[in-house]
Amino acid sequence: MLDVGAALRYARSNRARFVEELSALVRIPSVSSDPGSAPHVERCARWLADHLRRIGFPNARLVRAGGPPIVVAERRAKADDRPTLLVYGHYDVQPADPIGAWQSPPFEPVVRNGALYGRGASDDKGQFFAHLKALESWIAGAGELPVHVRVILEGEEEVGSNTLRAWIVKHRDTLRSNAALLSDMVMRGPGQPTLNYAVRGQVAMEIELAGQDRDLHSGQFGGAVHDPAQAMAELLASMHEPSGRVAIDGFYDTVRTPSRRERRYMTRVAPRDAEILTAAGATVGWGEPGFTLYERSTARPALTINGIASGYAGAGSKAVIPSRAVAKLSVRTVEGQDPQRVVQQVKRHVRRVLRPTMRARVTTTMAVPAATVETSHPVMRAARAACVRGFGREPVMLRLGGTIPVVSTLRSALGIPAIMLGLALPDDRLHAPNEHFELENFFRGIDTSIWLLRLLANRAMGTS
Amino acid sequence: MLDVGAALRYARSNRARFVEELSALVRIPSVSSDPGSAPHVERCARWLADHLRRIGFPNARLVRAGGPPIVVAERRAKADDRPTLLVYGHYDVQPADPIGAWQSPPFEPVVRNGALYGRGASDDKGQFFAHLKALESWIAGAGELPVHVRVILEGEEEVGSNTLRAWIVKHRDTLRSNAALLSDMVMRGPGQPTLNYAVRGQVAMEIELAGQDRDLHSGQFGGAVHDPAQAMAELLASMHEPSGRVAIDGFYDTVRTPSRRERRYMTRVAPRDAEILTAAGATVGWGEPGFTLYERSTARPALTINGIASGYAGAGSKAVIPSRAVAKLSVRTVEGQDPQRVVQQVKRHVRRVLRPTMRARVTTTMAVPAATVETSHPVMRAARAACVRGFGREPVMLRLGGTIPVVSTLRSALGIPAIMLGLALPDDRLHAPNEHFELENFFRGIDTSIWLLRLLANRAMGTS
Repeated sequence: MLDVGAALRYARSNRARFVEELSALVRIPSVSSDPGSAPHVERCARWLADHLRRIGFPNARLVRAGGPPIVVAERRAKADDRPTLLVYGHYDVQPADPIGAWQSPPFEPVVRNGALYGRGASDDKGQFFAHLKALESWIAGAGELPVHVRVILEGEEEVGSNTLRAWIVKHRDTLRSNAALLSDMVMRGPGQPTLNYAVRGQVAMEIELAGQDRDLHSGQFGGAVHDPAQAMAELLASMHEPSGRVAIDGFYDTVRTPSRRERRYMTRVAPRDAEILTAAGATVGWGEPGFTLYERSTARPALTINGIASGYAGAGSKAVIPSRAVAKLSVRTVEGQDPQRVVQQVKRHVRRVLRPTMRARVTTTMAVPAATVETSHPVMRAARAACVRGFGREPVMLRLGGTIPVVSTLRSALGIPAIMLGLALPDDRLHAPNEHFELENFFRGIDTSIWLLRLLANRAMGTS
Repeated sequence: MLDVGAALRYARSNRARFVEELSALVRIPSVSSDPGSAPHVERCARWLADHLRRIGFPNARLVRAGGPPIVVAERRAKADDRPTLLVYGHYDVQPADPIGAWQSPPFEPVVRNGALYGRGASDDKGQFFAHLKALESWIAGAGELPVHVRVILEGEEEVGSNTLRAWIVKHRDTLRSNAALLSDMVMRGPGQPTLNYAVRGQVAMEIELAGQDRDLHSGQFGGAVHDPAQAMAELLASMHEPSGRVAIDGFYDTVRTPSRRERRYMTRVAPRDAEILTAAGATVGWGEPGFTLYERSTARPALTINGIASGYAGAGSKAVIPSRAVAKLSVRTVEGQDPQRVVQQVKRHVRRVLRPTMRARVTTTMAVPAATVETSHPVMRAARAACVRGFGREPVMLRLGGTIPVVSTLRSALGIPAIMLGLALPDDRLHAPNEHFELENFFRGIDTSIWLLRLLANRAMGTS
């Protein structure tokens, strides 16, 4: 029973075919942001449902909930008392532009130097396909799955996962699981398995300031009326202290600071300031005093201005006092921060700072909470052990600075932790030309996933 | 000799023909900003040179100095010892868009309710044509001009007067005159003759801040690197005190404050705060404490942000830390301020405030000084007396908040004062659909100009 050796042997003897199948999947240009690619997105979903049926998920089906189809499939372990694992992936990909920068066509996958090149090879087709191949290896090699499995593959991740998130909330009762598994992130470096245990939340807002009801001549009125561009600058500048701390009342009140133990661990394994600056192409760091750049960009909240537009900013000059100014800002939240409360804090700040010369309209376009898994959680222990088996090395545990809305939704709607196992490398060129996926990480990912399924069967993960 | 009565009688008996001629001039769509209209601009210049030749300027000619032709003509008074008056106008017009908002086609001038409707009717064809008709009235009605006259009509005012300004500087020696006369502004109100005695200067600059060498993911790096959009907000906000005063070191050091006498005069005749707010469509004033809104927007310098652009400001949100931010700003300067010194002050401020996270590039696109004429200057006395004769009423003397580069150039290159006699009304819709010109102001303008020519002959205006 639960013959992990058989599953591993099956996986190893079928590697060549697995790569061919992945190539066929990458060949489908399932670009979700391009309406003209909708037939390809649909075709990709059908390809995956067919494939799942062939590898042992006879009930694989397409769920239509508004956006691109969600591919859903379940298969139970032989023993009823096993936990349920939700395997997530997304089959949509980023656009391939600029096409000219690709060394080989983005949707004609080829293997070069041990890596499969093609749009989506690592984000996310190659990464989630490793888990499908692990499932196949258990079913075909060992004749059973160690845990109950629910596969959910969406086609809308690159444009926000809205359909899937609403669908999960709506079907929270029938989707009950014990943990989620997803690979849609990067490893710390070659050969270094990596588990992410925290994602930041995101509050995205737009502020519009309106002064006069039309653009005014800056000669005629300059000096006598407040300029919305200037007022916006003043408002945005007021949101940070010169030190780099966010200056919005109550902003840090509920922020949970990492434990001393975690901070020591981060100091040891996480990217140092110099490494982060190099990755950013920056020469000088910035931000909240008392924390490393890694901590500032993962374990601490941040407020960034994503864009400002007001008046005329083209060639030459235009003598105008603009009638309005728009700014986009986003707050990355951490555990302890309620996104809705952050929204209220920002709105209160705008009201407090706003001069009577201006009217403000503040809208919220996104409010997703942070999600964290205790690194001592049983599923994390299983994941660490699986990494050791699959990669021959203890994984590093890292926080993610970004937001993965579906992880937050799984956490808030289903109450389950996500195992975030990065299989791509930082220089695999996700979202860029010449995206690729190292086959070594594909194979090690399959082995790790096989082990994970096995180890989860032993763990107490709460009721299913 | 100098039979002003004969000139006035000639003008009055030819009014109908003058309106027909002005209509023919307005009919030519001389839109300088539209390259496709270049033939019309050329045709307009030729029409004017022909017209000048017919009314007594046989040497009227087109000067080609790079841009649209400059129409130039001279005619001397009989007596050699008379001063020289430079009559300026611009024959180019604003585009007519949105065409659909016009009650009658913009280039098919018609008279309705005592006003001539058409693009350019008031800005500036109708206004400068009044002076040409005054010249004609002297030559044809009285047989001579009271002063030497130099006519300069440009076709590039609506796009910056660059050609003319360079040409004036280059030919400063041959253009020597005692005063300039121009009508390209508005009156205080119906029946109220208005002389402008001051224009503000303008320094237009662009500031570009560059942080990282590319846009960054705001989840990955938010909190660890400085955001150029935020840095720009902080920089721009630092340029004003909360009170509304400009916070740039030395900015006010050389500013000449109007005399108590002038301030009393302004309090009496200039627009009050409420009137300026209504014109601006604003509810609350703003700016330097201790001055009225009129003073702040004419007699005091002002710094306005004309535009800001950074990152993404379209629909939805984009998780980006922009790599750069651009802002356009303009300073309206007053007498006592050297534009080049203001440029240096702004640059020094940027250097002082700039954080080490950012690189700044500051470029200057315009630096034109303010120009003021003492209201007690002999030519201003003549102009006031002429207004009383032409309009039956003492003119108000007002400062202009805007900049008229050619006035500043005439002042700085030729050292001469400009008589700025507004003949358009504030609601004549200059630059807007349904532009028109009240014929009453056309006729009163001609009479005023006839009187002005006569009165200038008597004045000591310095050497020619």
